[in-house]
Amino acid sequence: MKIAVIGPGSMGAGLGRHLAAAGHEVRVGSRDAERAREKASEIGASFGGGYHEAAAEADALLLTIPWWGVDEVLGELGDAPSGAVLIDVTNPYKDDTFAELVEFSGSSGAEEIQRKVPGVRVVKAWNTVFAPVVASGPDFGGQAASVFVAGDDAEAKETVMRLARELGYDPVDAGPLSSARFIEPLAGLMVRMAYGLGRGPNQALKLLTR
Amino acid sequence: MKIAVIGPGSMGAGLGRHLAAAGHEVRVGSRDAERAREKASEIGASFGGGYHEAAAEADALLLTIPWWGVDEVLGELGDAPSGAVLIDVTNPYKDDTFAELVEFSGSSGAEEIQRKVPGVRVVKAWNTVFAPVVASGPDFGGQAASVFVAGDDAEAKETVMRLARELGYDPVDAGPLSSARFIEPLAGLMVRMAYGLGRGPNQALKLLTR
Repeated sequence: MKIAVIGPGSMGAGLGRHLAAAGHEVRVGSRDAERAREKASEIGASFGGGYHEAAAEADALLLTIPWWGVDEVLGELGDAPSGAVLIDVTNPYKDDTFAELVEFSGSSGAEEIQRKVPGVRVVKAWNTVFAPVVASGPDFGGQAASVFVAGDDAEAKETVMRLARELGYDPVDAGPLSSARFIEPLAGLMVRMAYGLGRGPNQALKLLTR
Repeated sequence: MKIAVIGPGSMGAGLGRHLAAAGHEVRVGSRDAERAREKASEIGASFGGGYHEAAAEADALLLTIPWWGVDEVLGELGDAPSGAVLIDVTNPYKDDTFAELVEFSGSSGAEEIQRKVPGVRVVKAWNTVFAPVVASGPDFGGQAASVFVAGDDAEAKETVMRLARELGYDPVDAGPLSSARFIEPLAGLMVRMAYGLGRGPNQALKLLTR
């Protein structure tokens, strides 16, 4: 698949690196061409140019930018191929203190993104997985970290679940995109436990079934 | 410990049964004396009378009633021993369709309960674990289901974590009571996955660490 990394921070670079290693054609987009070039070479991907260019021919976009930058970036994704899968990895933190999530009454960050870029198919995923876990991989002593995957388009959701499986995760179908209303606060819980309580990010959730 | 089950539905009865089996002095309270007597005998506990009486001498109260009944019941718990631990197992569903959670802006069900009964120490726990899992126990093929435990009083929280450990769960300190803002939506995710998507309740979350 042609996958555009929209924002090569630690999440974007980490996922991009593993997706490239799995054989996907990964292109890195950034407002800062120098940074995109550097990151692309670092993770075994291609330089994709700015966000607009990186998105232009992508089958899937990996949205890995801080929430407070989302609005501006979405404006550049309007020309993404119709039907492209937008994997929304963001969490709607108000600012870089990561203290407070935006409260959407009867909505979620993912649903707002879908509303603003109606041509793509938004799928929420990986937002509860910490970047250091992404970097080093989802295995916890034989147990794979779960990725909760929510979206309204069954095919787009299956695509993301397949990508997660390729990278060794345990993908969990979490239902329609509105499930992001639950999955975004779940990231809040993880962030609080990792950083608020000082236990660090080497933790992940697993859905047990029997 | 003297533990009062406030509401002997499937969660209350299930936790009460296992706590009694673990050697605690469990008393069952209900508005319906007949029902409380029946349930108490069924789970190896004592009949505690109405909510008020059942709570009167308890070290810990297990609040296991539907959210829409909470306000009325809390009015009867005002004479609970000062400092008693109130284990809040509720989830703030608007009604028995379990379709929508109440949206608390900058608060949570647990925090509202604490505000209304200031004399007890509220600890959120077990609200993301399904009653059938409680009934049959937390073991999933060698992995114990996690119980996320949130509260502002360290000692009360440790008490609840110890109870969870006694019953075989993996208790996870989830921080202050305000973490219920994340843990209550998490129950929404579990309910959606179990019932909305038809996969059933035999699933639970586990926090993996490495």
